[in-house]
Amino acid sequence: MKKVAVILSGCGVFDGAEIHESVISLLALSRAGASYQCFAPDIPQIHVVNHLTGEVEEGESRNVLVEAARIARGDIKPISELDVGEFDALLLPGGFGAAKNLCDFALKGTDCQIEPSVLSACQAFAKAGKAAGYMCIAPMMLPQIYGEGVLGTIGTDTDTAAAFDQLGGSHQACPVDEIVVDEANKLVSTPAYMLAGSITEAADGIEKAVSKLLAMA
Amino acid sequence: MKKVAVILSGCGVFDGAEIHESVISLLALSRAGASYQCFAPDIPQIHVVNHLTGEVEEGESRNVLVEAARIARGDIKPISELDVGEFDALLLPGGFGAAKNLCDFALKGTDCQIEPSVLSACQAFAKAGKAAGYMCIAPMMLPQIYGEGVLGTIGTDTDTAAAFDQLGGSHQACPVDEIVVDEANKLVSTPAYMLAGSITEAADGIEKAVSKLLAMA
Repeated sequence: MKKVAVILSGCGVFDGAEIHESVISLLALSRAGASYQCFAPDIPQIHVVNHLTGEVEEGESRNVLVEAARIARGDIKPISELDVGEFDALLLPGGFGAAKNLCDFALKGTDCQIEPSVLSACQAFAKAGKAAGYMCIAPMMLPQIYGEGVLGTIGTDTDTAAAFDQLGGSHQACPVDEIVVDEANKLVSTPAYMLAGSITEAADGIEKAVSKLLAMA
Repeated sequence: MKKVAVILSGCGVFDGAEIHESVISLLALSRAGASYQCFAPDIPQIHVVNHLTGEVEEGESRNVLVEAARIARGDIKPISELDVGEFDALLLPGGFGAAKNLCDFALKGTDCQIEPSVLSACQAFAKAGKAAGYMCIAPMMLPQIYGEGVLGTIGTDTDTAAAFDQLGGSHQACPVDEIVVDEANKLVSTPAYMLAGSITEAADGIEKAVSKLLAMA
């Protein structure tokens, strides 16, 4: 049974991990016969967003690990406990949390930095030559993890794609139900809700990404 | 295209809607060609539970509708706006939120009452003879909605099953990957995480329930 580490960034598309992407990923892993363990950084969220109004809740504070535990039904560990040696592959769903909490691309653009415990974990998989999957906006971290020329996709948004290239990556445009594979790096990415107009569209790409991830693991 | 109203009870298994059950339901509806609209009561949650520790966060308050909006990606309405005439069927995922926020079974047992706006919406579907699906602990509301002798399942827990009968229902034991159908009431229920040991197990029953729901709609 292949073991996959899943890094979540909170719970909710506007300030955390995209919930549909996360659950569809876990279900696809499980149905393919893989086991998974969820992780998240034990840090405060950058924002708490009221998902009904879309407004930032000024003065409210939530913790990324504690909120991500909602998606994981309590079975989650701080990312500081992620030992690459225990896993065959890594998977990062998207959501704004990936660009606010795992890195700060949503705030700083191409001046973004990756949260240290996240960078350390992701680089460990890269250095070990283990398979990894990044979806939605999470691939914006790939150039800083894999270095010059890494192949990845955030879909078709030209500004975001240009930022990916400016960070050192080589962006590949990709439709919502497809994946981009960097075979040399054992890396797969898919646009998910960067492009999806429905949960079905998101699921089609995510299921392909998980299937490819496990094939490379 | 069949239109389904989905009632959520927050966001997270211990104080709201069970996230896996909710997302798997939405995906199954969408893949079957149905459209859905999420609703939730605009009321405070009974509890906020830290899903990492399992402890109630004393003094913290969250709103059921605002938190449920996380699962719905912001596309959700207060249950007071649910017009039964606009929908072909109703679906309620589970989670403790169904037994804390939609009704108070988790606190009061067989003295439980259903939140008035939820009761009104659910009874409207029953009176209109429209199909409905209840999963996990949500079927505990069925006796008060459908009356004496309604068929439903919460799985196999004997205490909870006895409470279902004491409330006036006729409980049917059911394995995790199966459904119980009350054909006269156009009603389907499935145990989901009342019994599921994995997301795959939960999904198997939920997908059958959604399929039967749409067949009856």
